[in-house]
Amino acid sequence: MKNLFVHHVYFWLKNPGSQEDLAQLLDGLNKLAKVETIQKHHIGVPAATNRDVIERTYAASWLALFDNAADQDSYQVDPIHLKFVEECSHLWSKVVVFDSVDAS
Amino acid sequence: MKNLFVHHVYFWLKNPGSQEDLAQLLDGLNKLAKVETIQKHHIGVPAATNRDVIERTYAASWLALFDNAADQDSYQVDPIHLKFVEECSHLWSKVVVFDSVDAS
Repeated sequence: MKNLFVHHVYFWLKNPGSQEDLAQLLDGLNKLAKVETIQKHHIGVPAATNRDVIERTYAASWLALFDNAADQDSYQVDPIHLKFVEECSHLWSKVVVFDSVDAS
Repeated sequence: MKNLFVHHVYFWLKNPGSQEDLAQLLDGLNKLAKVETIQKHHIGVPAATNRDVIERTYAASWLALFDNAADQDSYQVDPIHLKFVEECSHLWSKVVVFDSVDAS
């Protein structure tokens, strides 16, 4: 996977125990996946792995791969993305984003 | 990308300013990528994006995709992985791992 822009977002819910809120967030992410510049995506929840170095307190993860940085810029202002934020941002208490590009 | 096990690791260096240490870590990750159960991988550094929600203090990121959780378990004890930890763990001060599986 060369020349990728890797956008990985982790969400913590305001109501961590709410399966309904989680389902609503996951539904929103499934709609978000329709943004055209996204090459591949993965909607996740914490795996069963559990070691000291593993962060597993988040509720959902959103991995989106883009061909380049410009496509990710475009995604940020895509109407589908703006609608996702509008409809779902009340669900989360914290979001952490890691954006990575090729190391070499 | 269905049925994936997504393993994303972020490394902070003991000597954050050392290009030599970063190069050594990236070299180690390139060797680590040879583990046979890894389906796809990406070796990254922070992108230029810079918003409040973006964590960009890490030095390098390691994304490895596996077909299933068992393949990731196998990777953890693969001799290539053990050698990577042996040769490179002195370089980092912090490692954070996010393991994610399909949400539905």
